[in-house]
Amino acid sequence: MSPIDILDYAGVALFAATGALAASRKQLDIIGFLFLGAVTGIGGGTLRDLVLGVPVFWVAQHLYLVVCAATAVLVYFTAHLLESRYRLLLWLDAVALAAYGVFGAYKGLLVTESATIAIAMGMLTGTFGGILRDVLAREPSVLMRQEIYVAAAMTGAVAYVALRGLGMGLPVAAGGAFVLALGVRGGALAFG
Amino acid sequence: MSPIDILDYAGVALFAATGALAASRKQLDIIGFLFLGAVTGIGGGTLRDLVLGVPVFWVAQHLYLVVCAATAVLVYFTAHLLESRYRLLLWLDAVALAAYGVFGAYKGLLVTESATIAIAMGMLTGTFGGILRDVLAREPSVLMRQEIYVAAAMTGAVAYVALRGLGMGLPVAAGGAFVLALGVRGGALAFG
Amino acid sequence: MSPIDILDYAGVALFAATGALAASRKQLDIIGFLFLGAVTGIGGGTLRDLVLGVPVFWVAQHLYLVVCAATAVLVYFTAHLLESRYRLLLWLDAVALAAYGVFGAYKGLLVTESATIAIAMGMLTGTFGGILRDVLAREPSVLMRQEIYVAAAMTGAVAYVALRGLGMGLPVAAGGAFVLALGVRGGALAFG
Repeated sequence: MSPIDILDYAGVALFAATGALAASRKQLDIIGFLFLGAVTGIGGGTLRDLVLGVPVFWVAQHLYLVVCAATAVLVYFTAHLLESRYRLLLWLDAVALAAYGVFGAYKGLLVTESATIAIAMGMLTGTFGGILRDVLAREPSVLMRQEIYVAAAMTGAVAYVALRGLGMGLPVAAGGAFVLALGVRGGALAFG
Repeated sequence: MSPIDILDYAGVALFAATGALAASRKQLDIIGFLFLGAVTGIGGGTLRDLVLGVPVFWVAQHLYLVVCAATAVLVYFTAHLLESRYRLLLWLDAVALAAYGVFGAYKGLLVTESATIAIAMGMLTGTFGGILRDVLAREPSVLMRQEIYVAAAMTGAVAYVALRGLGMGLPVAAGGAFVLALGVRGGALAFG
Repeated sequence: MSPIDILDYAGVALFAATGALAASRKQLDIIGFLFLGAVTGIGGGTLRDLVLGVPVFWVAQHLYLVVCAATAVLVYFTAHLLESRYRLLLWLDAVALAAYGVFGAYKGLLVTESATIAIAMGMLTGTFGGILRDVLAREPSVLMRQEIYVAAAMTGAVAYVALRGLGMGLPVAAGGAFVLALGVRGGALAFG
């Protein structure tokens, strides 16, 4: 797996875990875990691919759905052991947001070769899964919380595009942008 | 009309009726009935076709919009005669969910030839119209109710894929899967 | 710029302004203004293009995103000067609804040559941005308010299709339909 594939699968799996945690907070059954896990895991990337006009990633490659389902089942059997599911949800969401924001910028740049579109895609991709989860589960929206949220996805996307523009290789640009985005969001969560 | 066409139009018309009933519960005007009826009737199938990368069904064939509009007008003139509009909404939604879940699996299998994608499409297609209706009309979400909901769409989709895999003909597989899905959801409504 | 281009950019910019005003009412930071402004500005047109199966307008032409961002920044620095941001939001939304409803009908007719689809597109395009804004910002939905809303978008779309069908030129049909739609919605706001 290349570093960019890791960002992709990590984003999907971690968003799926936050969807399953939301299902747990709402005391849904196993199917509810699978559904919210899958919708949150693949929601952002689905919108990205539709808007870019490329085949939707999880229709072309089943493994993504399997990853979502496995994550949801894992959360189903372990969530009751956690002290604060909402706290974990926010932290997993932070890592997913950083990973998927960078991956969205990468894919946007690959398809359109435009920095503006790449940044917009990163923001859209990074945040849409969490927004969908909060609307569906009727949770307080991450979008409306005081802490920096969309800004973290934007940081990741802008940093990726800038580092690539400066001639950095793919792994360095993607890794650096991910660390920056996670720092912004994680800092807000830790000290916000 | 083939049995599969009946499932398709029945799903659209019945979802449209539930959208119009939600408009009635919110005391909207006739345009509100038309709008919520159309969005609920075609919402699930629109998402399905976008994700599958095929032309959106109601753009290719106007009759679907006409069916939605006619259903909404019919509900507009009769809804006040009903004793419990919410009870009827839930039952119509159950039949639409079963019909459209099976039809989604049928179309997903037709386009991708993958059982995993077909099942995901059935779940998505069967549930998305109702989710959209509840978000737009600010109703309590069917997704969050205790009764089995997504599970019924999944049952229909899995049963359709399994029966086809076992070599059953299209009408038998579609009919059997529909009855099973309706049994799961209807049982939950009647005894849940 | 042709009259139809003016409707297009006016719709995007005005919807972006309403999104930024919603961000202001929720006391979000500048990134929140940019995000809600962009999502509201391009939301309706994105859905329209996806459903019509044509390239998404803002991916093909970056200027739209720049217009959204500039509008959001302008609102960020001026919104605190306003006496009633919600009143302004509703009036800007009315003009955007009229402009974008007509433009949606124009594009729907151009692509599909069907009056039914053109009218549905106008309604969808005119209303979806505002619906998205209200769901994301957790505002009271424009859709659920007593005043005529969807009806105004429908008026614009029907009038455009009818005037074109009667042989009117593009500028006259678009201008007339816009005035009619704005009259319906503005009248409801002023006297409703």
